[in-house]
Amino acid sequence: MKINGKAYRTIWTASGGAAAEIIDQVRLPFEVDIVTLDTLEKAAIAIESMQVRGAPCIGATAAYGMFLGLKEDASDAGLARASERLGRTRPTAVNLHWAIDEMSHAVANAQPVERVALALKRAEEICDEDVEISKGIGASGLKLIEEIAAKKKGPVNILTHCNAGWLATVDWGTATAPIYMAHDKGINVHVWVDETRPRNQGASLTAFELGAHGVPHTVIVDNVGGHLMQKGMVDVCITGTDRTARSGDVANKIGTYLKALAAHDNNIPFYVALPSTTIDWNILDGVSDIPIEERGDEEVRMMTGRLPDGGIATVDIIAKGSPAANYAFDVTPARLVTGLITERGVCAASEEGLSSLFPERA
Amino acid sequence: MKINGKAYRTIWTASGGAAAEIIDQVRLPFEVDIVTLDTLEKAAIAIESMQVRGAPCIGATAAYGMFLGLKEDASDAGLARASERLGRTRPTAVNLHWAIDEMSHAVANAQPVERVALALKRAEEICDEDVEISKGIGASGLKLIEEIAAKKKGPVNILTHCNAGWLATVDWGTATAPIYMAHDKGINVHVWVDETRPRNQGASLTAFELGAHGVPHTVIVDNVGGHLMQKGMVDVCITGTDRTARSGDVANKIGTYLKALAAHDNNIPFYVALPSTTIDWNILDGVSDIPIEERGDEEVRMMTGRLPDGGIATVDIIAKGSPAANYAFDVTPARLVTGLITERGVCAASEEGLSSLFPERA
Repeated sequence: MKINGKAYRTIWTASGGAAAEIIDQVRLPFEVDIVTLDTLEKAAIAIESMQVRGAPCIGATAAYGMFLGLKEDASDAGLARASERLGRTRPTAVNLHWAIDEMSHAVANAQPVERVALALKRAEEICDEDVEISKGIGASGLKLIEEIAAKKKGPVNILTHCNAGWLATVDWGTATAPIYMAHDKGINVHVWVDETRPRNQGASLTAFELGAHGVPHTVIVDNVGGHLMQKGMVDVCITGTDRTARSGDVANKIGTYLKALAAHDNNIPFYVALPSTTIDWNILDGVSDIPIEERGDEEVRMMTGRLPDGGIATVDIIAKGSPAANYAFDVTPARLVTGLITERGVCAASEEGLSSLFPERA
Repeated sequence: MKINGKAYRTIWTASGGAAAEIIDQVRLPFEVDIVTLDTLEKAAIAIESMQVRGAPCIGATAAYGMFLGLKEDASDAGLARASERLGRTRPTAVNLHWAIDEMSHAVANAQPVERVALALKRAEEICDEDVEISKGIGASGLKLIEEIAAKKKGPVNILTHCNAGWLATVDWGTATAPIYMAHDKGINVHVWVDETRPRNQGASLTAFELGAHGVPHTVIVDNVGGHLMQKGMVDVCITGTDRTARSGDVANKIGTYLKALAAHDNNIPFYVALPSTTIDWNILDGVSDIPIEERGDEEVRMMTGRLPDGGIATVDIIAKGSPAANYAFDVTPARLVTGLITERGVCAASEEGLSSLFPERA
């Protein structure tokens, strides 16, 4: 999507095919820095340090990392070294391992001399495929927004939580894809952006990317959504999901469940947008069976922002000596989800719904 | 309650009856500063600048302010001047005007020479009366905690939102009064403290006061409560309320409604603690008829905390150019409230419930 009028992806081929470039997401929203990845190690560190984040974006970066590793050493040993190095950057990221396997598969049977070119081609394909998936989600969700727009005057008010935006993918995003498509088509949309404590991905990343592309939006603290829904100020909620159970239960950023409860209490549609790669066909009961990561308390305790002089500082906001706990995700039961927006269309949040769109997995 | 083992109120008579002292709540949780109020103007500024906050604590400070004003000028003109000055410090605070009227009434018919002593006496009475109300709420709520403790092993896990603690009153607090009484009685309690964005009264004030008194607690971001309730990690929720409709609908800090929805969805009791002075007998439908204050966006945008060097700094945490909205309260419908904890006992959140405890108002 656009930043200051110029179209970007989160990662792209640079230096005439010798490197990749990324937007450094650690510096956002305070600075837009483009970083060149021209070695395997730089690609690995970009993933480890969260210069890139979001499962699809991590996968794409790992793909380029494999290409860079082969550029350094195209032998079988070099291939193994690249796989190992990238594989331990973010151990729980599903797309990471998928991308490494895809890349290995693409070059394994080729002669070392051919591998670099093949790897670059496959890395670019992986990015293009991710963009197509996001576009599919966008097209599916666009219809829902168009239906609401047809029935009301004024903007379609969409509430979202966390960042399921283009910065988490290669382009378009998941929850944001229908929003960008609606906006680009001239539909009057306005997005309520949940701040999304503790890591503030809403206030920093979602607000940044919507603002940079020109989509009207307002940042709110995570406590506000229920009140807005009571007052008729939200037409639809769209969030992403990190993991989707076969039943339609969705594990997403902590706090998603509270918004789904409020939507249900106020008869407001609550949609979850997802690439089918997030569906875990082995899990039926999300609430009991999806493990919830507990992270370090510094994410709750520390807050980073701009000082009045323009410098960046991190401050500790909690009473001294008070412990803090940091649960990263929660599970929203399928009964609270109006529908799932996938690259193949919209379905009910249920085993039947998902099976109808993905019969080959049912 | 205690700070470092020493018992405090939020305001008390000092300098041998010539002044009042307060804990400067603007400096909390970073510093515990005691400030002397020895003039009408200092008392007025303490209220305006939020060195004292919370309706009962504001009322008590206004009472001392009237005393200090009469010490400067005990004539009818002096009385009028003090009423006027204090009356415009926080225009919407109900307890403020109540305290000013009480103080005026106490001295109006006395000779100027007697007024200063009468005013000090009445100010101290107002503080003592507030403490008795909090103790009444505490005793009512203590029974609920004792009942839960009797049925389970391990700590009674109580979730609270915002600060309805002793710092908002003269002592004991409202939502916290049952918690302090249970803790002081040796019952094993643990409090989940909602951070409470945007002003962070949970992470700063509630965490501070619980920690200073020695009550086990853990700070969580506002997004977490639903997950904890799903996982059986909350036994009861207790919050305060700024305004209570005759029907039992409660207006409290933004986000209270979301926690009440989660408690309802997980069959966890959700209690609201209140002095009967917060009941608005003229309002029946809280959701439609209680106006919700919209405040400046700087409370959402700016965050204050400690720098690594120990200094205090305020940083801007939102993407540059993104607008923010700041709704201060929301209304929790009575259907989601298990009961109201008042100084006269616990009742259903309904017109019948409140009438049974306060028949003189029904």
